[in-house]
Amino acid sequence: MTLFNPMLRASPLSEIFSDHSTLQGMLDFEAALARATALCGAIPESAVQPIAAQCQVDKLDVQALAQAAAGAGNLAIPLVKQLTACVKQHDEQAARYVHWGATSQDVIDSGLVLQLRAVLVASEALLGQLISALIEQIQRHQHSVMPGRTWMQHALPITFGLKLTGTLDALLRWQQRLHEMKPRVLVLQFGGAAGTLASLKEQGINVSLALANVLALNQADTPWHSQRDRLLEVGAWFAGVSTTLGKFANDFSLLMQTEVAEVGEPIAEGRGGSSTMPHKRNPVSCAAILTATTRIPGLMATLYASQNQQHERALGGWQAEWETLPELITLSGGVMQTALDLIVGMQVNAEKMRANLDITHGLIMAESVTLALATSLGKQAAHHLVEQLCHRALDENQPLAALLAQHPQVASYLSLTQIEHLLDPQQALGSNNTFINQVLARAAQQNRELV
Amino acid sequence: MTLFNPMLRASPLSEIFSDHSTLQGMLDFEAALARATALCGAIPESAVQPIAAQCQVDKLDVQALAQAAAGAGNLAIPLVKQLTACVKQHDEQAARYVHWGATSQDVIDSGLVLQLRAVLVASEALLGQLISALIEQIQRHQHSVMPGRTWMQHALPITFGLKLTGTLDALLRWQQRLHEMKPRVLVLQFGGAAGTLASLKEQGINVSLALANVLALNQADTPWHSQRDRLLEVGAWFAGVSTTLGKFANDFSLLMQTEVAEVGEPIAEGRGGSSTMPHKRNPVSCAAILTATTRIPGLMATLYASQNQQHERALGGWQAEWETLPELITLSGGVMQTALDLIVGMQVNAEKMRANLDITHGLIMAESVTLALATSLGKQAAHHLVEQLCHRALDENQPLAALLAQHPQVASYLSLTQIEHLLDPQQALGSNNTFINQVLARAAQQNRELV
Amino acid sequence: MTLFNPMLRASPLSEIFSDHSTLQGMLDFEAALARATALCGAIPESAVQPIAAQCQVDKLDVQALAQAAAGAGNLAIPLVKQLTACVKQHDEQAARYVHWGATSQDVIDSGLVLQLRAVLVASEALLGQLISALIEQIQRHQHSVMPGRTWMQHALPITFGLKLTGTLDALLRWQQRLHEMKPRVLVLQFGGAAGTLASLKEQGINVSLALANVLALNQADTPWHSQRDRLLEVGAWFAGVSTTLGKFANDFSLLMQTEVAEVGEPIAEGRGGSSTMPHKRNPVSCAAILTATTRIPGLMATLYASQNQQHERALGGWQAEWETLPELITLSGGVMQTALDLIVGMQVNAEKMRANLDITHGLIMAESVTLALATSLGKQAAHHLVEQLCHRALDENQPLAALLAQHPQVASYLSLTQIEHLLDPQQALGSNNTFINQVLARAAQQNRELV
Amino acid sequence: MTLFNPMLRASPLSEIFSDHSTLQGMLDFEAALARATALCGAIPESAVQPIAAQCQVDKLDVQALAQAAAGAGNLAIPLVKQLTACVKQHDEQAARYVHWGATSQDVIDSGLVLQLRAVLVASEALLGQLISALIEQIQRHQHSVMPGRTWMQHALPITFGLKLTGTLDALLRWQQRLHEMKPRVLVLQFGGAAGTLASLKEQGINVSLALANVLALNQADTPWHSQRDRLLEVGAWFAGVSTTLGKFANDFSLLMQTEVAEVGEPIAEGRGGSSTMPHKRNPVSCAAILTATTRIPGLMATLYASQNQQHERALGGWQAEWETLPELITLSGGVMQTALDLIVGMQVNAEKMRANLDITHGLIMAESVTLALATSLGKQAAHHLVEQLCHRALDENQPLAALLAQHPQVASYLSLTQIEHLLDPQQALGSNNTFINQVLARAAQQNRELV
Repeated sequence: MTLFNPMLRASPLSEIFSDHSTLQGMLDFEAALARATALCGAIPESAVQPIAAQCQVDKLDVQALAQAAAGAGNLAIPLVKQLTACVKQHDEQAARYVHWGATSQDVIDSGLVLQLRAVLVASEALLGQLISALIEQIQRHQHSVMPGRTWMQHALPITFGLKLTGTLDALLRWQQRLHEMKPRVLVLQFGGAAGTLASLKEQGINVSLALANVLALNQADTPWHSQRDRLLEVGAWFAGVSTTLGKFANDFSLLMQTEVAEVGEPIAEGRGGSSTMPHKRNPVSCAAILTATTRIPGLMATLYASQNQQHERALGGWQAEWETLPELITLSGGVMQTALDLIVGMQVNAEKMRANLDITHGLIMAESVTLALATSLGKQAAHHLVEQLCHRALDENQPLAALLAQHPQVASYLSLTQIEHLLDPQQALGSNNTFINQVLARAAQQNRELV
Repeated sequence: MTLFNPMLRASPLSEIFSDHSTLQGMLDFEAALARATALCGAIPESAVQPIAAQCQVDKLDVQALAQAAAGAGNLAIPLVKQLTACVKQHDEQAARYVHWGATSQDVIDSGLVLQLRAVLVASEALLGQLISALIEQIQRHQHSVMPGRTWMQHALPITFGLKLTGTLDALLRWQQRLHEMKPRVLVLQFGGAAGTLASLKEQGINVSLALANVLALNQADTPWHSQRDRLLEVGAWFAGVSTTLGKFANDFSLLMQTEVAEVGEPIAEGRGGSSTMPHKRNPVSCAAILTATTRIPGLMATLYASQNQQHERALGGWQAEWETLPELITLSGGVMQTALDLIVGMQVNAEKMRANLDITHGLIMAESVTLALATSLGKQAAHHLVEQLCHRALDENQPLAALLAQHPQVASYLSLTQIEHLLDPQQALGSNNTFINQVLARAAQQNRELV
Repeated sequence: MTLFNPMLRASPLSEIFSDHSTLQGMLDFEAALARATALCGAIPESAVQPIAAQCQVDKLDVQALAQAAAGAGNLAIPLVKQLTACVKQHDEQAARYVHWGATSQDVIDSGLVLQLRAVLVASEALLGQLISALIEQIQRHQHSVMPGRTWMQHALPITFGLKLTGTLDALLRWQQRLHEMKPRVLVLQFGGAAGTLASLKEQGINVSLALANVLALNQADTPWHSQRDRLLEVGAWFAGVSTTLGKFANDFSLLMQTEVAEVGEPIAEGRGGSSTMPHKRNPVSCAAILTATTRIPGLMATLYASQNQQHERALGGWQAEWETLPELITLSGGVMQTALDLIVGMQVNAEKMRANLDITHGLIMAESVTLALATSLGKQAAHHLVEQLCHRALDENQPLAALLAQHPQVASYLSLTQIEHLLDPQQALGSNNTFINQVLARAAQQNRELV
Repeated sequence: MTLFNPMLRASPLSEIFSDHSTLQGMLDFEAALARATALCGAIPESAVQPIAAQCQVDKLDVQALAQAAAGAGNLAIPLVKQLTACVKQHDEQAARYVHWGATSQDVIDSGLVLQLRAVLVASEALLGQLISALIEQIQRHQHSVMPGRTWMQHALPITFGLKLTGTLDALLRWQQRLHEMKPRVLVLQFGGAAGTLASLKEQGINVSLALANVLALNQADTPWHSQRDRLLEVGAWFAGVSTTLGKFANDFSLLMQTEVAEVGEPIAEGRGGSSTMPHKRNPVSCAAILTATTRIPGLMATLYASQNQQHERALGGWQAEWETLPELITLSGGVMQTALDLIVGMQVNAEKMRANLDITHGLIMAESVTLALATSLGKQAAHHLVEQLCHRALDENQPLAALLAQHPQVASYLSLTQIEHLLDPQQALGSNNTFINQVLARAAQQNRELV
């Protein structure tokens, strides 16, 4: 199904998992293997160039390869067969040394790790852009007051900057985790048929070191054919970043509801309109993100289930990764790219945010008035008086400020200006800005240290 | 990722979910809608043919459509736009009546239901073939004794026929469920923008009836834009059939282990071999099935999660179905087809089954000897004697029969022939055959009633 | 963790899965087994009463039993041991016949089926109450217009009755499925150690029939120790009902948002209040339902994963059902009960529903005015005129009706009464009521046929 | 359901998530809050002791609390109410300062973090024991040759030490991840009603710092009420460790199969026996582990799904964590403890491992003979000759060594001693030992650096 690729997978990550790139990753491994085995004297130096020269996807019959993989059980067997035949056409001797010492899973896994390296580089860049975009919007909207909402009900005022800061704060942690994860997961897979490099005899480790060197991957202390926690960690990272952004998209779609209308998606020709309903503008970016994040828990369940791999190399668990991990990563790429476009281009209606605070007629701010009156009236009386006026405000659909100002007892203590100051949400933000500043400071520091 | 299609999705179901078929299903809806609205007088009869004539996928620019869908939020908006433009080229008047009264989701969902109808027909046939193939193998192996295994340990003898009967028994229930499900799920989706068919005014229901009639679908009592239990039921059916077959494939792979070697996958050129290890024959069909069934729980989790669809039409939940349901169905198609080929062509080594029963040196059958001796020796003494001989059989790696025959006390009561009869697994099958026959009888009955 | 039972599991279903009930179900099986084996002459009639008399949970040392189960691998082994010891204290002879011919899984599975029978009866009743409550609320609110919302944006008017009808329509299908499922799943498990009833020799089937008869369960054609599709079907039913109600709860919480305020949860002392924020009323019932439905996809993934059970009796898959299925069912019971209370006691603010339709200043209804003016002005001119006035309505925050009435050209064709009629959402409901009536009619019919 | 606690949750982690500990964690927060607010002058110092003195679970009416939580929507509201009442009985003034400045979620989340701290400490110890036990067994079995198995078929020889090394290698990575995770996740939650600490005005940050200090938790840069990636990371860690051990348990159960019989679970009275089948010893520890790991993917799916939390504090997603995270952790504790007992006490049958290598009659080793003969006979001829003898070995069920020795041409080049040396699996282990030693070296290094 490719109809939904532009909607769900429009990021640089998708190309890295094309059929073409998957096969090329495997061929890159085969070329590097020829080099490494020759370096260690396991195969003749003369075989290297003839092999490496054929390690190009366009020399393969991809259709036939996929068909043969069904019978062989994996892509590597027919790939090696086709590659060997290609080499043989040019150099019969060299053809004997194709795939020397490796097993199918070495090719497939190491090819995957090469793809993952590219994917992590691209993701690090996307994440950096997301962080920068958020910082910019936070600075722009640091003081835009809006209703903080808990249980989907108005609670107390916050600023839109603080809401965005929550997402930034989480993304900064994902940035740390990516930093920690990279050296751990970008490792060579090389173990031979049963993970002992038996056919290379005492040369195994040397070839392995040389191969890791050629491919610029880390060396694993032992093959990991059926220990898949590294791939799980990669998958979990993407799932985590995506669900962090899914929370953001869900909030955004809630803020875009007709009754709330505090934000809007970027406006562009053909985006989210409805031909029959001119007043509508559908949150299509949010929908695309939420589509992916609705699917990601299930994809992660699969990765966890596939950890159970039998013995030295598995059947079922290993193979279940083959489409699942790329699916998870390319969907996550789409999430990151879509979220980036949304954050950069989002429309923010600060006036509506401010206006929505008044929906409850000032009740959100009533506490501060009570406290102010308490010094004169006593706490009990102040509380009672304000509570009565709150009920009237709701019943009569009037602003609390007006009722307070009209009330003789209140008026004798508080001027209208004072009342309005007390009811000003800007005055009731507590540590809102400190929190924002703390996270921005960490972002700056992390930018210096990690990037 | 299409490299794995031959391995994982080689069934007639896959074509039904090609991009081409998906779009054609939507176009079939549009053609039928033109007919139905004309029949009810909502649009002029003269518009029907010009619209219907353009409802062909090859008139669409699919690439552009997919791209536009990213902005529009779904496939239907750009499809209707392209279709309208096509019609307009031939008949400007008719173009005004394209998509009359429908909303995007009507087109998408009804198109999907048309695909599901084709898929259920094909699946019913596949299931019928699976049932027939199982019946044939059960009859062939009804009396092939083998170790029944519980907790992956030898328990008591069963026959291979009984093992296959378990799978048949479950498949017969899935056949019943399919029969019950079909009329419930193959229903038209037609509700207009908010599920009220508002723009058709009082003609709504008539058009809906006519449309269901043209498409030969059942009528829904109310639109189901955000009530998705029918699609859940379809997904659950495929997931259920697949996991039933996954259990079979897992058992099969256990029976194929080098040490067990009771069955083998069909032999064919290029299937499951290992170039470096000539003694190996990998269970590639089992692996393909288990690959799918490892992924299916996660796919079902997604379908359940996507049941939560907001208000009259959703964002996120609905869209999460778009790739998930086809993925689940085409993987399940692969499971059914692969299992069918496996069941039809499997190699069964009845001698090894029988031989494996002797691994525990007759201990599996010891109880019957004890009971036979108990009549003469008393239960306690018989038990004690046989137990001793069992331990010797294990320690000395000898068959229990020989030790019994050599034992003077036993020999005075039981001849070697009697001992061998008592130790014959064939004599200890209890209701094994009755269970097989009961299920075969139900299969025959169900074949008469449901198919 | 029992702290959350009142919040999440307050239904009659929970008691059925208490530890006490679980053990009693197993003991009921043992008592029935004694009766059935005696009826068939497999054990002496004199053993029945002494065994049956001890089949009471309060005779067990439950703590010791749970501890011993850890070593034994299941509950049945220590239960049978304790039961046998109890019987032996009163009748040494009878003690020899405890658990005659059965295997641990026979006891555990059949005990579970007895629990499931009770659970399905209770659930059928709860479902019936949910259906009745919905019917009553639909009739009450059949004509309460409100904004239909798609993509969480106002679309066109619907009535609150139609929204409720969607849920009713789905519940009616769950009622059908329950009806179909019951005879299929409420079956005896009885197969002995390897599913052949070997130790009962030729009496196996007779004992099985007698046992099913005593327990009033259906007979299975073959044991289903490792074929678990019936339990999957039961789990899927509860998951389906719950996620249908989860969609309802999510919609409800959206309608309760401070800005929307169309509905409210039942008011009761201590329910959903916030001590620090007097204007808040948290949707605690919705939260309880959504808590469960957020967890249900994962629980279903587990049930699907556990379908893969090895050979004749499994390790891992079977045991994974033991807590998962009761967890799923008791959470679902909580969902049904909480939803019932919510539906029965919900507060509906029909005025706010009507008022919210005006948030877009009549734009929702603009199309009908255009059509009315088109007959006089021509379609093009009418469209242009109305569009202009719509923009003014939005910009100046004025009702469209007023602008239309003030506009000389419009006023010359349409009186204020006519304008208001055209803008009346009640006039734009299309088939809203027909859909409601169709579903109510099916509810009535199904009530006659199924209940 | 507590019947399965001894089987599935017998670890020190379970007690940390008892109802008692959950409530005490919340009360510890309340006591620390009183201290911190007094330190900052927000409440009178005189209130601290009277509050702290009542922060004991045994002062609560837990039953009533759980019941009230159903109406209130969380545990904190009734806990604070009961606590306040307790304090009031002793000091009416102090009672006014209970829970000063905090919101329900601050109490609940910080209480959870206190539990997580205890859980991570206990898990680090368990993991350390697992690592030590594995190292010991690896050293013991470093040279025990056995069949390496791929696709559940014999591949090439490995040693049992290498198999265990794979698990050790993965656990060492989990140890690294734990080390990285701890400071990131063990942070205070303190944000007040909407995450701004509004009611503490300018004192917010100071109180927060003091509170983190009192509780010895890290300070968060901003409240994380609806950003739950930290909890996801904790859950993912436990899920990862558990599924690594699940792979081990699955391998172990495969090695315990009657036909394979290379290992056994620790023998103990009442463990895994079968009363009716004396030859059986069920892998009950493996089953307990696999039970948990079958469920963990679903539990993780729930944690991922619950990442989507609305606005400043959520409904549904947050609450879905409440039982899921403890369930995941206590099941994982059971997995770790059970795996530890299994690894420490496992029975290893090195002779059977060696013997199973001969099931394929030496074919596993044939390649080395071919290479040895190739120097004399030429590669082609050598290959042909050995292949023929392999087929005879299989057909006639004879050891390859004997056939080689009897063959005149072979005998003229190779002595029996040479043949046996060539066929000795010990000679074909490639880098088996180097891999083991590399991992052991990392274990030693990590032990110095991290523990």
